[in-house]
Amino acid sequence: MVSVDDHVVEPAGLFEGRVPAKYKDAAPKFITREDGTNAWSYEGAEVSNVALNAVAGRPPEEYGIEPTSLDELRPGTYDIHQRIKDMDANGQLGSLCFPSFPQFCGQLFARTADKDQALAMVRAYNDWHIEEWCGTYPGRFIPCSLPAIWDPEVLAAEVRRTAAKGAHAVTFSENPSKLGWPSLHSDHWDPFWTACCDESVVVCMHIGSSSQLVITAPDAPIDVLITLSPINIVQAAADLIWSPVLRKFPSIKFALSEGGIGWIPYFLERIDYNYQRHRAWTHQDFGDRLPSDVFNEHVVTCFIDDHFGVASRAWLNMDNVCWECDYPHSDSTWPTAPETFMKQMDGVERADIDRISHLNAMRHFGYDPFSVIPREECTVGALRRRAAGHDVSVQSKSKRVKAAGAMAASLGRMAESR
Amino acid sequence: MVSVDDHVVEPAGLFEGRVPAKYKDAAPKFITREDGTNAWSYEGAEVSNVALNAVAGRPPEEYGIEPTSLDELRPGTYDIHQRIKDMDANGQLGSLCFPSFPQFCGQLFARTADKDQALAMVRAYNDWHIEEWCGTYPGRFIPCSLPAIWDPEVLAAEVRRTAAKGAHAVTFSENPSKLGWPSLHSDHWDPFWTACCDESVVVCMHIGSSSQLVITAPDAPIDVLITLSPINIVQAAADLIWSPVLRKFPSIKFALSEGGIGWIPYFLERIDYNYQRHRAWTHQDFGDRLPSDVFNEHVVTCFIDDHFGVASRAWLNMDNVCWECDYPHSDSTWPTAPETFMKQMDGVERADIDRISHLNAMRHFGYDPFSVIPREECTVGALRRRAAGHDVSVQSKSKRVKAAGAMAASLGRMAESR
Repeated sequence: MVSVDDHVVEPAGLFEGRVPAKYKDAAPKFITREDGTNAWSYEGAEVSNVALNAVAGRPPEEYGIEPTSLDELRPGTYDIHQRIKDMDANGQLGSLCFPSFPQFCGQLFARTADKDQALAMVRAYNDWHIEEWCGTYPGRFIPCSLPAIWDPEVLAAEVRRTAAKGAHAVTFSENPSKLGWPSLHSDHWDPFWTACCDESVVVCMHIGSSSQLVITAPDAPIDVLITLSPINIVQAAADLIWSPVLRKFPSIKFALSEGGIGWIPYFLERIDYNYQRHRAWTHQDFGDRLPSDVFNEHVVTCFIDDHFGVASRAWLNMDNVCWECDYPHSDSTWPTAPETFMKQMDGVERADIDRISHLNAMRHFGYDPFSVIPREECTVGALRRRAAGHDVSVQSKSKRVKAAGAMAASLGRMAESR
Repeated sequence: MVSVDDHVVEPAGLFEGRVPAKYKDAAPKFITREDGTNAWSYEGAEVSNVALNAVAGRPPEEYGIEPTSLDELRPGTYDIHQRIKDMDANGQLGSLCFPSFPQFCGQLFARTADKDQALAMVRAYNDWHIEEWCGTYPGRFIPCSLPAIWDPEVLAAEVRRTAAKGAHAVTFSENPSKLGWPSLHSDHWDPFWTACCDESVVVCMHIGSSSQLVITAPDAPIDVLITLSPINIVQAAADLIWSPVLRKFPSIKFALSEGGIGWIPYFLERIDYNYQRHRAWTHQDFGDRLPSDVFNEHVVTCFIDDHFGVASRAWLNMDNVCWECDYPHSDSTWPTAPETFMKQMDGVERADIDRISHLNAMRHFGYDPFSVIPREECTVGALRRRAAGHDVSVQSKSKRVKAAGAMAASLGRMAESR
């Protein structure tokens, strides 16, 4: 089983030895505050959310997005050796890990006034991610680089540099316009798309990566936000389809990370209907194809747990559907991902199970674990045997009492950390 | 066939003889401007959009949302006798018509400083709608009242008054919070919900009725907006489910007008998943039921054209799915609604076809056409025979050249008129 969406909580020593001397003192520092919570200190600010919603292995009562400390987290969230044990215990061979404290698109670094410094931080982060996080256990990770999002030429160069080191995924915003950069409808990003095509790099748009929370009303309970966050990816899907990008760059690939799949057949039917009804006055042109054809060709679709989506597979391009574990976030199916996954595979042919569980991820992300690890050691059973005795029981980790109003505060923090 | 979503373009004489003498001069006046376009003049302002997107029977090149004049519209949009002929020619027995120029929730009147005057306008509108528009041809319409939205007690009284005249539907906002009123999560609307329960009135939330357009980026083509408008109803669905309303008022019914149905199974699976995962810390309580149970009990779901939705009917509460024609808007299947409808009914059992095409609408909206019109005269074939010779061919109606930038201007107008 290969997951195309997990998350890493960055460990304290990340930048050590990876930043040029000139910027050594400027690198983010991992600190422990007076109340015991951890934070990253960078450019005079403290980033509270070291581990957005990293609640794996904790009881649901402790879920939330409060500031936290590493000692409240499962070590597998930040320690690579423990992470591999957690993956083994979950029967999970491969993992693509998104960043936590720099935000999905490295916005933390992009805000740095000195852009040379910003680039030094992005490079250091990517080198650590590729060499240390993914490199310590060859064949277990799909490296995903952080973008130098403030300049498309610099971004393109970093994509090429990290692709040469094996990163065939880059994390990007589901809507750069909401972050203050030009939209997908402009030609601003063309150097970036070109680099991704040249280097076979999938552009991953994770839900929430526009830093826009769907707030229906000031007094709406947080459940509304939790419900609407994933489906909000339809906005990115609509932007992608109607933008020039997919038609202008024939080999480009996007992944809608944590986007789910059950909404896609409805969405594609609607978008084709809109095209056929309105193209005469909106002047869209897909030649002899339909918008749905273009989506199905270019967009990798991803789900954690989606019975209805799997049941609707006749309406999906099954060459593009990938599975996600989402460790260590609250939606994750860890440590029983194989069991949860197989429940959804009731009645699904073996070929489709293989495509969803690993073949599609391997093909799209240029990930070839079997060249490093014998195939028979990659099965759920083999991995779990290796992890025999590893404790995956639910453990209370809370060190602090949940404050009144913590939920409202969580909302604000969720916005600031995505 | 009974449609629970069509639209009326209000005719010039609407307020004549329906407003108390004190407010006679204050009533909206239908005017023709120098450029030949029509508007309603009210409280010193001109409402340009007399007929939001009322393009039925015109070629797709002329679709759009420009200011228009009645002579550019199909007479069936505003003339009740012509409307009946258009309905007959479409094989359509029944129709629920939403307002045009007062906006979905009567915001135009709600903005009036003198609230007695505002109420006089809402009452005049409702009397016209029930007595003239719906009353001229008994058994052909499901009356839908305009809300006195500025005061829940006044609103409740108007619901009771119009229900006594036969209106078992009221048009309301998919998100009153976005219009500046309290949200569904407050108890502000309780008198209104109580009146709707007492009088068996369905609260209709039409897409776009929050006046919030989904704009992903300033340079996004209008196709993005058109694509995202219907699916945006998920926000109303999430608000409804997580609000206290459905649990507090056991007999209340909401309709998600023009909301489509193909997204619902995915959405309900997600919301149940969220509930089970997060309730321990968000403290939501559905007793021995699930959020999906509550949705399926209270929410009438509606579609115009949704193959995938119909194909997914095993996942839907088929007692609540209703068909819509959406005449005279651009998404309407008029004048071939029966043919378009039956294409989607391939393989669907007769009982389900009957429920979708008319039985659910009749039951939910207390609509009983057969008490007025013999059943055998209500079939598609019988209605079409009555309309023999009625011209339904596509006709170019454009009197003005589409200005450059008309599309961008349309966007702004769409926001102001919903």
